[in-house]
Amino acid sequence: MNYMLKDENAIYYECGYSCDNALYLSLGSEAYFITDSRYTIDAQEHIKGARVVIDADLYGQAVRLLKKARVKKVHFDPKEWSVAGFEKISSQTKIRFKQVMDLSHKKRIIKSDEELKIIAKAAKLGAKAFKTLAKEFNTNGFSENEFTLTHRAKAILGDFGKYDLSFDPIVAINANAAKPHATPTRRKLKKGDLLLVDAGLKYKRYCSDRTRTVFAEKGFAFKTGQIFGKKKIQKAYDTVLKAHDNAIAKARSGMRAKTVDALTRDIIEKAGFGKYYVHSTGHGVGLDIHEMPYISKKSDTVIEDGMVYTIEPGIYIPGKFGIRIEDMVAMVDGRAQVL
Amino acid sequence: MNYMLKDENAIYYECGYSCDNALYLSLGSEAYFITDSRYTIDAQEHIKGARVVIDADLYGQAVRLLKKARVKKVHFDPKEWSVAGFEKISSQTKIRFKQVMDLSHKKRIIKSDEELKIIAKAAKLGAKAFKTLAKEFNTNGFSENEFTLTHRAKAILGDFGKYDLSFDPIVAINANAAKPHATPTRRKLKKGDLLLVDAGLKYKRYCSDRTRTVFAEKGFAFKTGQIFGKKKIQKAYDTVLKAHDNAIAKARSGMRAKTVDALTRDIIEKAGFGKYYVHSTGHGVGLDIHEMPYISKKSDTVIEDGMVYTIEPGIYIPGKFGIRIEDMVAMVDGRAQVL
Repeated sequence: MNYMLKDENAIYYECGYSCDNALYLSLGSEAYFITDSRYTIDAQEHIKGARVVIDADLYGQAVRLLKKARVKKVHFDPKEWSVAGFEKISSQTKIRFKQVMDLSHKKRIIKSDEELKIIAKAAKLGAKAFKTLAKEFNTNGFSENEFTLTHRAKAILGDFGKYDLSFDPIVAINANAAKPHATPTRRKLKKGDLLLVDAGLKYKRYCSDRTRTVFAEKGFAFKTGQIFGKKKIQKAYDTVLKAHDNAIAKARSGMRAKTVDALTRDIIEKAGFGKYYVHSTGHGVGLDIHEMPYISKKSDTVIEDGMVYTIEPGIYIPGKFGIRIEDMVAMVDGRAQVL
Repeated sequence: MNYMLKDENAIYYECGYSCDNALYLSLGSEAYFITDSRYTIDAQEHIKGARVVIDADLYGQAVRLLKKARVKKVHFDPKEWSVAGFEKISSQTKIRFKQVMDLSHKKRIIKSDEELKIIAKAAKLGAKAFKTLAKEFNTNGFSENEFTLTHRAKAILGDFGKYDLSFDPIVAINANAAKPHATPTRRKLKKGDLLLVDAGLKYKRYCSDRTRTVFAEKGFAFKTGQIFGKKKIQKAYDTVLKAHDNAIAKARSGMRAKTVDALTRDIIEKAGFGKYYVHSTGHGVGLDIHEMPYISKKSDTVIEDGMVYTIEPGIYIPGKFGIRIEDMVAMVDGRAQVL
C-alpha cells in the first residue's frame, strides 16, 4: 500500500524522527522523509528506514517523488491533511488518492513490546508525579486557588521542564469538577473540598493519563480509597470506583469496545446516575493522547492484546460536584493490566 | 462576508474563548460558536458576540445552521480545515465555499492597542525570564548538557508552570547552534563556549519570542554586547548585531517587508556571510508564534503601524557555530519599537 503522512506523530511512528515541517511518503519498497534545510542534520542522524530529502518546497518535492515512482494509487488520512496541503499535491498529479480514515492510528492500535515498556514507564512517571503533587498540595496548596494549583501541577508533572505534558492538566474543586473539561478559576482550595486532578506527561513522546478525585484534608493522597464528608458525594464516588474496578477486572481481549464501555455504564446507570455520566469509558493512549481504541457505547472495535486505553468513568452533578477515576490499562494475556 | 473557522486561535480572536473542539460560523450579522457539552458552562461564561450552540456532532450542527441562514457563499482558509472536516460540511450543502488563504491571519495582522499591551507584557516577561535563566546557568549550568539546560530553560520560561511556552525552547552550544532548529544533545556547556538560546512564553495567549547568542563565561548575561574569544566568531557576531540594529533603526511603516528583509541581508552579504544566512529576517507574532507579516526576500506586504514582528538575522557556519540575535518590534508612529 502506498501512502502519505503529514501528522508529526504518524511520521515519527514510521521512522523514529519527526519535526514541525515534514511530509512522509511510503511508495512500494521506498520511503521518503521530506523536510527543509533547518532539519537536515537532525533528520539524517535520527531517521531509520527512509531517505531524507531536503527541499524548501515540501509539496513540490512530494509531487516530483510521486511522479518519479509512477504509482497509481496513494492512501492518505483526510483528517491529517489540510485542504490546502492536499490540493498542493493532488492538483499536480493524476494519481488516485484514496481516503483512509485513521490510517496511522489503525496501524498504531496494537502496541509493540517496546512501546508497551515506554508507555508503562510514562504511566509510572505520571503516578509518581501525582505523589509529588499530593505532597506539594498538602504543604502549600490549601488556600491557593485553582489557577495557582494548576500551575503547580504543570511544573511538577513536567518535573520542572524535564517532560512535556500530555495535555493541559485539569485541577478542579467542587462544582468546577462537574465540568469534565474545566477551566481553572480563582476558587481557593479549602479543607473538606472535593479535588479532581486529571493529568499526564510524555516519556519518549508517549503519553500518560490519570485522574484522581479526593477529599482534600491535611495529609490526603491521590489514592482510590476516599472518604468524603457528604453521603451524596460518597455514594457517587463509590459508584464510580465500582464501575472503574469492574471494567478493569472484567475487560477481556476478544470483547467489543462497547462491551467494555457497558462494564462501567451499567453500574452507574443501575445506581441512578446514568444521566450524569456524560462521556465514554475511555480512549486509546500512545503517541497521541487520544487514539484508538475508543471505549464507547457505539464502538464495535474488538479489544486485543497489546492495546492500551483508559478506564475513566465519571459522574458530574452540574453546579455541585464531579467525580472521575482514571487509569491506563494494557491488554496482556487477555486481561486488563493497570499501568 | 460569511466565513467559517476551525483553528483555536482564529476562533479565540473572534469571541474571546476557544477550546480544542469547536467550530465558528460568522453568517451575516450572526455568529455561532459550536462545541460539545464538556465546554457548555465555560463557553457561555466567556464568549462575546457569538451564540453558543452545543452539539456532540459539530459538523452536522454547522450544516444545519448554514442551511437555516440560507447563505450562498462562505469563505474559509484551506490551511485551517482538514480534508475530512471540510468535506463533512461541503458534501451536505449546495453553498459555494471560497478559499481565502490566511483568512484569520490577515484579519490579525494589525494589532489593536489592547493586543499591543498584552504582547508588550509577554515580551517583557520573556526578557525577564532570560535574566533569570542567565542567573541559573551561571549558578548551575556549567558542566550541564544541552538536554538538561533545555529543561531548565523550559521550567524558568514557564515560571514553573505559570505560563505556557510559545514553542519548545532552543538551547544550543557551538556547532549545534549552527542548526537553526537544533535538537538538544548531551554536549556539556563549558566556559568559553558559544551559547544560543531562542525562547518565548505566552501571556494571555499571546506569544513572545527572543534569541540571544552569548560567550559563556562566569557571570555572562543575555545582552547584545558580547566579546568572544575567537576573531572569526566575533566578526560573524558583530555582523549579525549590525544587521539586527540596522533593521530596527531603519524599518518604517510604508516599506515593503522585503525592504525590511534587505536591511539585514545586505549587511550580512556585504560582510561575505550571505550564504550562511539561511532564513528570513523575521515573522509576525501574536496568538500564533508565526503569523503575518513575514519579513522575507519575497514578501510584498506593506509594513504598517500596529504590526508586530521579529528581527532575527543569523549566520550559521555548519560544523562550527551559529549566531542569531532576535527581538520583537511593534510599528509605532512609523518606526520599529523594540518590545
